[in-house]
Amino acid sequence: MATIKDVAKEAGVSIATTSRVINNAPNTSQTAIAAVQAAMKKLGYRPNANARALVSKSSNTIGVLVNDVSAPFFGTMVKAIDTIASEQEKQLLIGSGYHDANKERNAINLLINSRCESLVVHSKGLSDDELTTLAQEIPGMVIINRTVPAIADRCIALDNHRGAYLATDYLIRNGHRDIGYICSSHDIEDAHDRLAGYLDALRDNGIEPKDHFIEYGEPDECGGEQAMVNLIAKNTPITAVATYNDDMAAGCLALLQENGIRIPEEMSVIGFDDGHIARYIYPRLTTIRYPIQVMASEAVKLSLMLANNVPVERGEQKLFMPTLVRRASVCQRQ
Amino acid sequence: MATIKDVAKEAGVSIATTSRVINNAPNTSQTAIAAVQAAMKKLGYRPNANARALVSKSSNTIGVLVNDVSAPFFGTMVKAIDTIASEQEKQLLIGSGYHDANKERNAINLLINSRCESLVVHSKGLSDDELTTLAQEIPGMVIINRTVPAIADRCIALDNHRGAYLATDYLIRNGHRDIGYICSSHDIEDAHDRLAGYLDALRDNGIEPKDHFIEYGEPDECGGEQAMVNLIAKNTPITAVATYNDDMAAGCLALLQENGIRIPEEMSVIGFDDGHIARYIYPRLTTIRYPIQVMASEAVKLSLMLANNVPVERGEQKLFMPTLVRRASVCQRQ
Repeated sequence: MATIKDVAKEAGVSIATTSRVINNAPNTSQTAIAAVQAAMKKLGYRPNANARALVSKSSNTIGVLVNDVSAPFFGTMVKAIDTIASEQEKQLLIGSGYHDANKERNAINLLINSRCESLVVHSKGLSDDELTTLAQEIPGMVIINRTVPAIADRCIALDNHRGAYLATDYLIRNGHRDIGYICSSHDIEDAHDRLAGYLDALRDNGIEPKDHFIEYGEPDECGGEQAMVNLIAKNTPITAVATYNDDMAAGCLALLQENGIRIPEEMSVIGFDDGHIARYIYPRLTTIRYPIQVMASEAVKLSLMLANNVPVERGEQKLFMPTLVRRASVCQRQ
Repeated sequence: MATIKDVAKEAGVSIATTSRVINNAPNTSQTAIAAVQAAMKKLGYRPNANARALVSKSSNTIGVLVNDVSAPFFGTMVKAIDTIASEQEKQLLIGSGYHDANKERNAINLLINSRCESLVVHSKGLSDDELTTLAQEIPGMVIINRTVPAIADRCIALDNHRGAYLATDYLIRNGHRDIGYICSSHDIEDAHDRLAGYLDALRDNGIEPKDHFIEYGEPDECGGEQAMVNLIAKNTPITAVATYNDDMAAGCLALLQENGIRIPEEMSVIGFDDGHIARYIYPRLTTIRYPIQVMASEAVKLSLMLANNVPVERGEQKLFMPTLVRRASVCQRQ
């Protein structure tokens, strides 16, 4: 591959001048620009992004840490970030942390070592202290889907408690009293907050929560299916079930259908996320909208501003708010 | 942030020695290693991946071009590549091309300019000639989901014709004669090959294809739903429908359910991909398995071997083969 020296020689100008042309520096003569561009074309020279990153101290890439890129929720999040990145002619460097402290640490270190100018981090494994230290080191680092109190102004998070409260309250308003909950088995803030929202909604409506109405599983279709198997096996009198996310709700629906239990007449089911799948399972899923697109856009914009030392006025760190989406999987208790 | 000069000064050794320690060069004294490591730790110094990339002429990243990272199929593909990448302590740099020639070209250029040592490219917009030229320039570039004849030994592709043939033939073996086809409206090889597979299966079984049994749409749930609306609107006598992919099949199923058309008794539906959604829509989807995980793994391994000049024996370029997955969305014609 041709080097900058080859280009300079071919163009008959100095390496410094060649470099100025490549980097679009001001005050470069039109003659030099034409000569260098012709030489670059002739030799098939490509400016080296790593070299430019060294000069500019940034790699023109946005680093993103997700749990698992193959989970639809994170696909949607990455796409929202990519939309902003493309507008600003930046690339994404994506790492997966799988909610594990070591994997998250390694992935973030790789992204930092690649001199990502900004970082959008979905971390559930690392401690608040470790994230705070990292954020102090990296001015353009923003946390998504979590609140770290010491750096709250750099966190973009959802009010998970309110989401699950809304879902449970909606079931209660439909006459349900015996309401199950299918919870994520991951020991993360989101799971705790959503479970607390479910419990508080019951209590605020004078319903005593029952431990055996709650089941745990991996936060995917398979986990939701298994949790529903357990609720049925225990012969609970539930007429409705709130779930940790749409994927678990989808597994739950598939199991109920296969067992001839009519939805929503015999069992109402409500999801969480309003992901792609919610509109295409049957019946279409009543769920809680997680505004991940707008949150991801906000996170990457904030991150780019911080990385470029643009003054940011966010005032108090605000939680994003979930809303209810009514479709066909919940009805009045029969 | 601390620089290598700061580290050298703190450690009381030369910059060259410091560099040797950072890059794990042989013949470095234990004293120097200890001093430099202590200085790095004290100053919070991080070796710059871009600088190391310049020295090693590679960035230790694998570049991946996908259509759209938020489509579940590509999420699965990226995850399979990430699994291999993690094993080899490499990162992924992901670009989206959206099946558009300009966007694909820009994304590939960004990946190449970042000196990705290997590239796995899903391209549908660029011509065979352009991909061949790029492949000559980048020894570690591998094409996935497409066959480019001039570089067939660097292509990992599926026999799409056979997949759609299998699907249609299975419907015929279940007694169906009036079989609709829901096709992707994208003008790409996959769409043409699958449509041809459907048509050939009909003809091989003595059934004359009918143009108005074929509808086109975006290759997602919404497109599948709209295509099914059109087939119903035209009052076609079809009793079964083959689809371009599972997402279109899911949209089709949702529409049929909402219209009280029983699946599979009144309408059999078969998908393509065997993605995540296939097991969780109702009824569980009979479909064609696209072995994207094994293909993606093969692609990234091939790419790394080529990038590292490891001799590769692949013999003739082989097409990967799809298989039928029987679930509950197809039954004997009633």
